Amino acid sequence: MTRTVYVNGAYLPEHEATVSIFDRGFLMADGVYEVTSVLDGKLIDFDGHYARLERSLNELDMGNPTTYDDLLEVHRKLVAENGIIEGMVYLQVTRGNPGDRDFAFPPEDTVPTIVLFTQNKPGLANSPAAKKGMKVISIEDQRWARRDIKTVQLLAPSLGKMAAKAAGADDAWMVEDGYVTEGTSNNAYIVKGNTIITRALSNDILHGITRAAVLRFAAEAQMKVEERNFTIDEAKEADEAFITSASTFVMPVVELDGAAIGSGTPGSVAARLREIYLEESLKAAI
Amino acid sequence: MTRTVYVNGAYLPEHEATVSIFDRGFLMADGVYEVTSVLDGKLIDFDGHYARLERSLNELDMGNPTTYDDLLEVHRKLVAENGIIEGMVYLQVTRGNPGDRDFAFPPEDTVPTIVLFTQNKPGLANSPAAKKGMKVISIEDQRWARRDIKTVQLLAPSLGKMAAKAAGADDAWMVEDGYVTEGTSNNAYIVKGNTIITRALSNDILHGITRAAVLRFAAEAQMKVEERNFTIDEAKEADEAFITSASTFVMPVVELDGAAIGSGTPGSVAARLREIYLEESLKAAI
Repeated sequence: MTRTVYVNGAYLPEHEATVSIFDRGFLMADGVYEVTSVLDGKLIDFDGHYARLERSLNELDMGNPTTYDDLLEVHRKLVAENGIIEGMVYLQVTRGNPGDRDFAFPPEDTVPTIVLFTQNKPGLANSPAAKKGMKVISIEDQRWARRDIKTVQLLAPSLGKMAAKAAGADDAWMVEDGYVTEGTSNNAYIVKGNTIITRALSNDILHGITRAAVLRFAAEAQMKVEERNFTIDEAKEADEAFITSASTFVMPVVELDGAAIGSGTPGSVAARLREIYLEESLKAAI
Repeated sequence: MTRTVYVNGAYLPEHEATVSIFDRGFLMADGVYEVTSVLDGKLIDFDGHYARLERSLNELDMGNPTTYDDLLEVHRKLVAENGIIEGMVYLQVTRGNPGDRDFAFPPEDTVPTIVLFTQNKPGLANSPAAKKGMKVISIEDQRWARRDIKTVQLLAPSLGKMAAKAAGADDAWMVEDGYVTEGTSNNAYIVKGNTIITRALSNDILHGITRAAVLRFAAEAQMKVEERNFTIDEAKEADEAFITSASTFVMPVVELDGAAIGSGTPGSVAARLREIYLEESLKAAI
């Protein structure tokens, strides 16, 4: 089936969806993105993703080519057109096409480019990976300094994912100055006793929408949360580990650099948080 | 006049030149580039740029969709079609269009995308800026760790250029751990007495093609070259400062963070190196 995608106001078959070679997103990675999950045909945490999109655009002095209502409508239309029950909607905004290349920003009246497409992922909520758990390796964090802005500068995470594959693992946790920052496309957590430990928000990591929700649910469930740095060695000694992201929700990590974490099987805290997150998010889905 | 540009084997009017929204260059900044100058209608340092392109592609395990001979032909055809006497040829190669988005690399048979276009810059060699000199500010280097690979992850340099503009300057020198790495799109140098000082090659800076040529010409002209780190304070106390890049050749820097360097006018070493570089490069142009 040919997907219908959205480019600058037009709904198009995916093979006809293009941008200019002069688009700042193509020439300079001058763009930001969001990924919103779909469960039961509804959008998960849409408000959070919209708020973060606005923040990313503001941080880069980039115009917002859309509004909350319009964007919600495009999301819903793409989900309906493509018959997505479980999956994702990917959204990218770039500084647009100034018609030539220059390091300096183009004139303010350059219209930002907006692109959306769906990804069909049946079984997203009941993922077998959530029952099996993930294997993770550690790598140096090679990314730029503003990881709080969700830009398309994704070469380092992409190379990290390939390094994990080459090592027979599922993902990589990035390490800077001895401390874990996050996974290649997710936030990282360890559990010691009844305490969930995850790095505090700063420019060093993405401000995960799923992270915010999971930490809120954890607090509501009387779990203790410590937002602080941790090392790979501490993670190896943890009782559990897991990641969160918009497309994986809560996913247990059972192995780190070849060492089993806890019992080497998915832990109960991650399982409980995944259950609560899916339940609560579905209730609030729009 | 409408430019003729090149996209994946086709010569097209610039307004019809597009890439898929699924191109890895657009979605993940998974692409590398080169800029080759044109003087007298001929290509400057083409061999150096081709060699660096191959190195960048290798470092990222990316396929090379072209050959030296084919690429030279495309460069020459674009220069001729667009009547470029002085200007640049921009070249970008990405990991291509796998038809969907994934952090993992696409299958090996995914054809890389190749895009080339010209920029017409009459007066490039006799630039008034070379007589006046540039004003530079210093900023923190926010880029990723592999600046030796010439990727399109150019947000930090672009933001740096805008910070310079906002401060009434022409460019920014980036500083890491107290030492200058390079300019936003050029290598940085200071001159003390008869010694040219510039940061040594490593993953921290771009391996400038113009840098290599200029250092070779400097040695041939019996100038002393020291490849080592220097600070902004040392630069402010220098007799001269300058930058090199493929599109600016050698360009004097006369002010740094508001302080005049040397006499506050272009220095004789930079002027001499610019003269030698233009003369020798033109002789070797193809």
